Amino acid sequence: MIVGLGPGPAEWMTPEAGAAIGAASDIVGYAPYLDRLALRADQRAHASDNRAELNRARLALKLAAEGRAVAVVSGGDPGVFAMAAAVFEAIEEDPRWLDLDIAVSPGVTAMQAAAARLGAPLGHDFCAISLSDNLKPWAIVERRLRAACEGDFVIALYNPASRARPTRIVEAFDLLRRLKTQATPVAFARAVGRADESLILTTLGEADPGLADMATLIVVGSSETRFIARDGARVWMVTPRAYGARL
Amino acid sequence: MIVGLGPGPAEWMTPEAGAAIGAASDIVGYAPYLDRLALRADQRAHASDNRAELNRARLALKLAAEGRAVAVVSGGDPGVFAMAAAVFEAIEEDPRWLDLDIAVSPGVTAMQAAAARLGAPLGHDFCAISLSDNLKPWAIVERRLRAACEGDFVIALYNPASRARPTRIVEAFDLLRRLKTQATPVAFARAVGRADESLILTTLGEADPGLADMATLIVVGSSETRFIARDGARVWMVTPRAYGARL
Repeated sequence: MIVGLGPGPAEWMTPEAGAAIGAASDIVGYAPYLDRLALRADQRAHASDNRAELNRARLALKLAAEGRAVAVVSGGDPGVFAMAAAVFEAIEEDPRWLDLDIAVSPGVTAMQAAAARLGAPLGHDFCAISLSDNLKPWAIVERRLRAACEGDFVIALYNPASRARPTRIVEAFDLLRRLKTQATPVAFARAVGRADESLILTTLGEADPGLADMATLIVVGSSETRFIARDGARVWMVTPRAYGARL
Repeated sequence: MIVGLGPGPAEWMTPEAGAAIGAASDIVGYAPYLDRLALRADQRAHASDNRAELNRARLALKLAAEGRAVAVVSGGDPGVFAMAAAVFEAIEEDPRWLDLDIAVSPGVTAMQAAAARLGAPLGHDFCAISLSDNLKPWAIVERRLRAACEGDFVIALYNPASRARPTRIVEAFDLLRRLKTQATPVAFARAVGRADESLILTTLGEADPGLADMATLIVVGSSETRFIARDGARVWMVTPRAYGARL
């Protein structure tokens, strides 16, 4: 079972995910996700490093082929920039792995948690782009950012920055600033649902991309996205369902 | 509270959503979503028709301003083509509504449920487009489909067809077929998680858009998406994390 734990808090984890963890003999995942789980003495945790997705997938498939009941865990949704793709990338390496009984259990992903806190920024057509160029050429990221602007999508940016590539997020913002209005609403949503949650609402022109780290999900609005001001409370960020007057 | 019930089954509804329903005095929503809930005798259900989102939002805000504990329910995630945007569209109509204590509770949305069943089609950058032109000009849908092809995104199509606009899905497929390889993997995922769930895996060249109805979520692959064949079982549909060799 490839399981999504959601963004962090137990109230955002599906009952199916909880049941899958409970039914597993072996739980395979990135160490901080395993730390969230209260495992029993008879369950075995296999923690690995963040970059090691493909080896983690192989370990899970090997254990499952040995007859173990394996749960591979991801934060968020395992289908969105997470372990489901890694498991299926590895699955053809051993013909026995293709015969395994595999299921994916969906979960709430970071952009949904961020959107919930912000109001309704994903209320209309949107796209999700990972800014990591570990596994794809940066030219593809640029091509997708350009296309996202051309299509006037709301853009959710995953993996915006890391110590290994601190300047990519700056390049991405430079590109977005050339193609979109400076007043476009932008949100930096960090660690939503966790104790160190923080939200920064700004505009494309004013945004400081240096604020983003690997725990940050960035939402860049479409031409229709706007802020709704409130007295004494954070503004709402909303993309209306109607694509309207400005056409 | 604007609450997402998930795609259907209880095991895909978050504990937060369940708690929010339990804490509400008034539950406002599209009738089939309310039918899923086991409400208590002291709770009042306000059912409305599918097209009446804005009036439903106004009713919820009015009840909340009267001091009622209101839950507005959506299937899936209320932030994705659902009620959160409608509530915030209405919120400026009455200054008292802006002072209300509103929160959004995220949920698993249809494309995630479909992706879980299919394998990992959303394993890389993707976009979500509603094909409904009730609230936006069809020209915007076409512009976004074109941009999605230009960016080589995996495309999740929501609201692909209805009795009121049976030909739009055909126009959308005609456009996609002009811009993408005919061998592109395509999935029609209908009512995933419900008793009448069905999955059809095909290619862009072979797909029959007439198979889609309003309960269908369509996934159109990127140039990297592929099927993985299995003996005696449905193929997996996977978009690898790496954007690779074909560049």
